[in-house]
Amino acid sequence: MNGPRRILLTLEYDGTRFSGWQRQINGRSVQEEVETALGKATRRPVQVTGASRTDAGVHALGQRAHFDTAAGIPDDKWPFVLNTLLPPDVRATRAQRVDPGLHARFSATGKEYQYRILNRRQPGALLRHFAAFVPLPLDEGKMREALGSLPGRHDFKAFQAAGGSAKTTVRTLYAARLEHRGEEWVLTVSGDAFLYNMVRIIAGTLIQVGLCKLPADAFLRAFESGDRLALGPTAPARGLTLVRVDYEGLT
Amino acid sequence: MNGPRRILLTLEYDGTRFSGWQRQINGRSVQEEVETALGKATRRPVQVTGASRTDAGVHALGQRAHFDTAAGIPDDKWPFVLNTLLPPDVRATRAQRVDPGLHARFSATGKEYQYRILNRRQPGALLRHFAAFVPLPLDEGKMREALGSLPGRHDFKAFQAAGGSAKTTVRTLYAARLEHRGEEWVLTVSGDAFLYNMVRIIAGTLIQVGLCKLPADAFLRAFESGDRLALGPTAPARGLTLVRVDYEGLT
Repeated sequence: MNGPRRILLTLEYDGTRFSGWQRQINGRSVQEEVETALGKATRRPVQVTGASRTDAGVHALGQRAHFDTAAGIPDDKWPFVLNTLLPPDVRATRAQRVDPGLHARFSATGKEYQYRILNRRQPGALLRHFAAFVPLPLDEGKMREALGSLPGRHDFKAFQAAGGSAKTTVRTLYAARLEHRGEEWVLTVSGDAFLYNMVRIIAGTLIQVGLCKLPADAFLRAFESGDRLALGPTAPARGLTLVRVDYEGLT
Repeated sequence: MNGPRRILLTLEYDGTRFSGWQRQINGRSVQEEVETALGKATRRPVQVTGASRTDAGVHALGQRAHFDTAAGIPDDKWPFVLNTLLPPDVRATRAQRVDPGLHARFSATGKEYQYRILNRRQPGALLRHFAAFVPLPLDEGKMREALGSLPGRHDFKAFQAAGGSAKTTVRTLYAARLEHRGEEWVLTVSGDAFLYNMVRIIAGTLIQVGLCKLPADAFLRAFESGDRLALGPTAPARGLTLVRVDYEGLT
């Protein structure tokens, strides 16, 4: 047996059949599935803390979560053990031993999200759980113009859902990139931290700008006014994927 | 009302929850879903003929299927009508009026398939229904060498499942392309026609070549011997997608 240590997991999941990351009374959560698998693996109750509390329907390629254990499983073997115990829509892709002071959520220095949009006349069958559907043409120039104003340190007060309870709404967006691949648009945003629903509000606004229903300076106006109504609707959860969570000194 | 006419549909579907294209007594088929939707739309029984009888778990981006109708729905409105009646894992993406002599299956002059392989240490959650999983490294050079011998006119006798009943097993493969995108390999093959399980046998063999369990000239040896045992196992259905079906004079 080893002494107690902190393990940081990297997790991939298909959010379609989950009520979200966070454990709750009614509904299946990713956190509960991971805690159940760890409980079986270690024969003890294990509490897991995730970096991001993703909503129902939101996916992850690189969610990260920590737990403490004294179980005799070598650090790098956790993914193999967990993947025999987890349901097929959750996979552990990596495990690292980290300093006990590292906290999956509070120590995160950056996150990257992707938002996918299927843009053609008819909805898709293969991407129905993984992309928002927009049947009308999108104006690329206007979308790129709008996105250009996002990177940097801003007060994102207008960019949060009604339930948001953050103490400060100032965030730094590192980058906002838009790619056009055939019938699909992929928006990638990275930043130090994100408010509740912030990426989905950015995506929803970008779509309205592309449809010429909001002006290309909609983000700028929202920074100035702090008014949620200056922005578009929250885009559907299914288009969103948490791609990566970063920590200082960790790869 | 219009006179009877032949409509060619382009269909996208997620094959995960289907027993395959073809209608059968037990099990949910794509053909039956499309026929049911057409029956509701036209209030008459409608028979649909597909270009390819895809297996359980095989997906389609561009399956094509024809039916005859006298219903008063404008030719280009069929996708809109059908997509309100079809289940979410099947979508009509296009409809064209075609010559009554055109047969979705027998008039097809070419098809393109993609086979996706997730190649990393741990299985995926997001691609679990859309890619085969190979946890060991694949030798790119050997795979490309093997693929190089596929294009052209060959006797593909060795490249069919035991149940195959084709009169002739000579086929022309137009192209075989392999792309490496991060953790994913994508094999794209196009040809005039394919034997039963031919693409999955090609993919399964390619994986064995990449794992150095079969020689890089495995395809050449199989052309010479006609022996199914010279090739690898049939790769899982979930990795396969029918991308396109072509007809002379049609786009």
